[in-house]
Order: sequence, then C-alpha cells, then structure tokens
Amino acid sequence: MKLSNRAIQIQASPIRKLMPYANNAKAKGLKVYHLNIGQPDIETPREMLDVYANYEDKVLAYGPSQGLEIYRKNLVKYYLRHKIEINIDDIIVTTAGSEAIIFAMMVTCNPGDEIIVPEPFYTNYNGFATMAGVKLIPLTTYAEDGFALPDDEKILDKINERTKAIMICNPGNPTGAVFERKDISRVTRIAKEHSLYVISDEVYREFIYDGLSHTSILDMPGMDDLGIMVDSISKRYSACGARIGCIISRNKELMAATLKFAQARLCPPTIDQLAANAAIDIEEQYFKSILTEYDKRRNLVYDALVNIKGVICEKPKGAFYIIAKLPIEDAEDFVKWLLDDFNVNNETVMLAPAQGFYATEGLGKNEVRLAYILNEDDLKKAMNIFAEGLKKYIETK
Amino acid sequence: MKLSNRAIQIQASPIRKLMPYANNAKAKGLKVYHLNIGQPDIETPREMLDVYANYEDKVLAYGPSQGLEIYRKNLVKYYLRHKIEINIDDIIVTTAGSEAIIFAMMVTCNPGDEIIVPEPFYTNYNGFATMAGVKLIPLTTYAEDGFALPDDEKILDKINERTKAIMICNPGNPTGAVFERKDISRVTRIAKEHSLYVISDEVYREFIYDGLSHTSILDMPGMDDLGIMVDSISKRYSACGARIGCIISRNKELMAATLKFAQARLCPPTIDQLAANAAIDIEEQYFKSILTEYDKRRNLVYDALVNIKGVICEKPKGAFYIIAKLPIEDAEDFVKWLLDDFNVNNETVMLAPAQGFYATEGLGKNEVRLAYILNEDDLKKAMNIFAEGLKKYIETK
Repeated sequence: MKLSNRAIQIQASPIRKLMPYANNAKAKGLKVYHLNIGQPDIETPREMLDVYANYEDKVLAYGPSQGLEIYRKNLVKYYLRHKIEINIDDIIVTTAGSEAIIFAMMVTCNPGDEIIVPEPFYTNYNGFATMAGVKLIPLTTYAEDGFALPDDEKILDKINERTKAIMICNPGNPTGAVFERKDISRVTRIAKEHSLYVISDEVYREFIYDGLSHTSILDMPGMDDLGIMVDSISKRYSACGARIGCIISRNKELMAATLKFAQARLCPPTIDQLAANAAIDIEEQYFKSILTEYDKRRNLVYDALVNIKGVICEKPKGAFYIIAKLPIEDAEDFVKWLLDDFNVNNETVMLAPAQGFYATEGLGKNEVRLAYILNEDDLKKAMNIFAEGLKKYIETK
Repeated sequence: MKLSNRAIQIQASPIRKLMPYANNAKAKGLKVYHLNIGQPDIETPREMLDVYANYEDKVLAYGPSQGLEIYRKNLVKYYLRHKIEINIDDIIVTTAGSEAIIFAMMVTCNPGDEIIVPEPFYTNYNGFATMAGVKLIPLTTYAEDGFALPDDEKILDKINERTKAIMICNPGNPTGAVFERKDISRVTRIAKEHSLYVISDEVYREFIYDGLSHTSILDMPGMDDLGIMVDSISKRYSACGARIGCIISRNKELMAATLKFAQARLCPPTIDQLAANAAIDIEEQYFKSILTEYDKRRNLVYDALVNIKGVICEKPKGAFYIIAKLPIEDAEDFVKWLLDDFNVNNETVMLAPAQGFYATEGLGKNEVRLAYILNEDDLKKAMNIFAEGLKKYIETK
C-alpha cells in the first residue's frame, strides 16, 4: 500500500537522526555532552511555572482560535517595547513557531510555488515546505564571511514567476548571523519591487551580542502588506515544551485567511498560553543575565574553535549556534566516530553535522553546528573533548 | 498581493462564524445558551489538574517528537482495556486530534487524491483537506434513518483511481451515529478489496449509550496495514484546552513517515502530555457517572425535539450531538433570528446550522446540530426557548 509522495520525500530530522548513536554511547556508560540540539539549560522563569501551579479553572476548555485575548493584548505591549507597532488583530497565537511557519507557507504559496531562503537554514523549514508542497530555493551563504546576506544580484537571480516569498531567520539558526537594518532593507526593497512576501523568523530576537540591535520585518517601511513575522517563546523564555508561538502581519486579508487555517485546528494549548502571558512583564531583568551567560559561552566556544588548527568559523553575532568548517571530509562520519569510538575519561560530545542545514547538494559536508546551551564547565569539557577528538580522528583516518 | 488558492478556498468555521450574532445578543444583555459548540461543562479530572499544580522541573523542555515515552507506554494499557492491542511504536502523540487528522491525510494522499467520508461530517475535515490538497468525497447519510452507513454499492460508486482512503468518525460528530461491528466490517472489506486506507476518528469512543459497544478500526482483522486511528483526550477527559491527541497504526512504514512529519514540528506540549498521562488510570469510576449524566441530557433533548411538530430526528447512540431536521427552509436564518430577534425572559439559545457539515451543495439547509453539553436545568430552559422560538419563527415568516 503506497504512501503519499510527500511522506516519502519529507526529510528525516538531520539533528535527531544520529540519536541512536548517542543512545548507544550512553548504554556503554559514556557521558555525552549534547551540543547538537537547541534545548537551553536556562531555567524557565518562575512567573511562568507559577501559572501551571496556580491554575484554578475546573474545566480545561478550548480558547479562541486566534489565541487568548489577554495574551494577545499583552503581546502588543511586548512588541511595542521592541519598537514593533502592531495591534491585537494582527496576531494569531500558534502552537509554537512551527505552526506559524506552516501557516505562513500555506497562506502565501500554492503547491509548486517557491520561497527563497538563505542557506544553511533551520532544517525543519524543509519538512514544512514538503507538507505545503512548496519548493525552497537556497541562497548560499558562507562560513568564511560569517554567513552574510549575498549581493542583490545573487538574490535577484533566484526570482522567477513561481517565487512567492523570501524567508529569513534573523538572528539565524544555524548560522548565528544577524542581518542588520541595511541587509533587511535590501531584502524589503527587492520584495517590494517583485511583489514578494517576506517571512521573517525572529524567534532569537533577544539573543544578540556585541551591542547590535535587532531589526524586525514589521519595523520596515512598506511592509504592511508583505511582511509576515513568525515568533515563538521556546528560546526566549526557555520554554520549548510549552509550544506557544505566533504569526503576525498587518495584511488584513492574509490574517483573515490564516484565521481560517487556525479555526480548523480549533486553538493552541490553553494553560501554556496563560504561562506565556505571565512572562510578558519579566523581560528586562531576566534577559540581561541570560545574555551575559550566553555571551560567555559564545566566547568560550569560539575561542576554543579558532585555536584548533584548520577550523574555520566567524564569531556569531546572535542566537546560540555556531557553524564550524572542519579540516576533514565528512562531518557526519566524525560525529558518529565521536560517539562510537572515542572518549576522554568516559565522556564524549555530540554535534549536529551541518549538511542537513543546506539544500544545495554537497554543501556543508565538512561543517558542524554547535549549540552553546550548556554551562561553562560542561562547555569547557565538551570543547576539550571536541578538540582532542578532531586531532585523533584526523590522525586515525 | 495574492494569497494562495488554499487560503482563499479554505472554509471558514461554520460553527464559529455566527459568534458575532451571539456576541451582539450578549451585548444587549441577553443570556445565550450555547448548544452550538462541543465544549463540555464536565470538570476535568482532578488527577490531570494536579499535574499542572505539581510540576517540578525547572526547565520546560522539548519532549520526543513521538510523544513522552511514559505516556505512550500508558496509552498501550489504556487501549488494551478497550480491546485494542497495539505497542508503543504504533503511537505518535499529536497536538490534539486535529494534528492527527492532518498527518493521516498528508501521509496517505497526494494533492488531488480523494478520501470518501460519510456526510454530514465534522466540518474541520474540510480545513485539513484544503491544507493537504485532498478532495473529500461525501457519502450522504440521512437523519430519517439515524445517519446509518449507506449500502455497499453507494460506497463502491465513489471509488476511483484517485481514492486513497475512507474516513469515518465513530461515534459520529455531528450525527451521534454509532457504526457497529457489522458496519465497520463492510468498510474494511471494501477497503481491503480496493487497497484503501481507513482513517477512523474515534475521539468519542467512551460516549456510547444503550449498552452498545465501540468497534475500533484497530480491532478489525486485516487492518494492520490499512487501519489508521486518530484520537484525542479533549472530549474523553473534558480537556479540550490541553491539545493532546494521537495517531495510531500498525503500518510501520506509515508510522515511520508520520514520525518525519512529527519531527518537523518537534513535539506536542510537554506538561499537557503529563496531565493526559495522569488520566490513564482514572477511567472506570470517572466514565460511569459522566455517561449517566450525558444519557439524561440525551433523553431530555431528544424528548423535547420529538415533541415539536414537524421536527425529524432519530435518537443518537453516541457522542453528545444530535441533528434535527426542522420544518423551515433556512436553519441559518433561524439561528440568526433566535439571536437577533427572539428571547424568553431575556434568554435565548444558539445552535449550529448543519449545512456546514455537508459537502453536497444544498443538503442540511433545514437542519441544526445541538450539542447537549449543558447541565439538565440549563438544557431544559434552552430546549424550551428553542421550541417556543421555532413556533414563533414559523408563525412570523
């Protein structure tokens, strides 16, 4: 009995597919430092957890399809603090950023339509594109120049009559790159000239270093009809398990259509929305300490990497990922080897091979993504194992 | 700037679209009894709510894409109590039944493929089908004979080379019909003969009256490859806001592909799964009292309806809905009129016009769906208003 083409074609998660190797290593008694996934170790704010503890309704009921009104009202305030002026009707709360992305793709594209996206990109864009029947057209960026946005002509080259949108992730997962206002401005100019939507994944908004500031697609002129922001609280409040995100646009027709998609699935989780709502006012004090912590980790990982002979990487300016190009041929083989055949005092490290983040065949084969989501002590140990492992791997192979 | 065709075509929720009329009525000071939505008033079990209250992890982390292992293990036990023998790898936990349905459609169908579904059917199947590019082929059933499954030849008539599945909802929303083993057996025989999947929506499994028993698609012979069950805890534990469901099949290839869809969206909500898990062992004592309560309500609503001249309906055997054919032309007009122009002591009632549950043009125009999800006192008042309103409406028009 045949499955659908999309069921056959959809990419298996390149981040999760090596988990059996990690499980084997653990079964042998090894400790594995996970630098392969974006699950932060930062504590979820007490204010959020208290909501679960204090929930008093006797019936755990449906909420509105567009999300709880109190939460949407407070989101307006949150975004205003980030210089993003929207009103409550521009927001639909979604089941995490994932649902926001699939809604954005489905509402803008017919099957067969194309979305241009700088690569390497968040691998799950592939899954959503397959579900929506959308073709992602990669726009290659390079480790050597910090994954900077390519020149206009490189972008223009990708546009044809099937192109419906340009999708960016800013700050970038997996690159850690931050597109500045002048970059976003180039994207929006091209989008306006060619009547393309810009879908902007801004879930790492708060994770920006070196005093840089974040530029939202919704803070750009002329983007009322074309700008679509997708967002999530997963990383912002270290609340990945709450599954709360949103899609935001000032395009009323687009939001009315998106609401119909949202109505089909009834509503996002109710108590989790209330928890997200409780986080709205805690931002200031919470983020400074977190950013300081991540900045230390970033420096630690970057310094460790540039001290390894043959490793190429630029210091990331945002998010909590770094891509490193290694002096080897096959990063996936290296990652498996680290788990199967290597340890330092019964400890090893797991990384994400970067090839899965590229859509262009053959790219990223010698690159890995590291998520610096462990505390400094663990991170030091992990980077030491990585360095020793790489040396040994090169000697052995 | 154009939206996608699916964004334009997707059906607005016929259940939710009349809400502005209800809101107007409330703004005028009227009390509105909502018989239009399936939000039960039954309390969510204490065991579930306690999980939220007692959650102790400091980081609200991602769970596995297939759902928490402890919950899936316990689901195996739950289904075994219902004579459904599956193992843990046959289950993927989803974000409510909604996600299970869209996964089932996406994994079985290419865009343009067809799924046969008895009508009237749960309207949101339309939304999911639009998203998946699937065409729903209605198989009309009738109020006059309790929405019984049509004869084989009527089903066979609908099968062509694009048909990939038959989808049933058992017990049925909005019909309240229960397909017995002999009915399901006809469906599975046809499915096997024509190599079709059977997608069985069994979210109302526990809501069966008159001593009838439930027949699961996974308890039918020869359905290991073809049977797909979608389920949800929303109605079972009156926990609609938790958004926890699952998709279950013994077809390993199909589940492996479904897992790839599931990996793209990372995971269902974490604490809500733990809450669902806590409900596994409370079934026995909890359900008897609930079923007794719903049975009373069912009798009350049915008796009220058959005492109204010209109303046609059969007593439903499951779920908590009843469809009534009214001696008027346009049920939607009647529902609006009840909200705009009618009240009894400043109280009125809201129903769901049934036309939106039919895919065949023109059907259901004089039918309404009532959800008997209020306590007996309120239900009595609501049915009295309904009866008086219908009389007055017929006199006036």
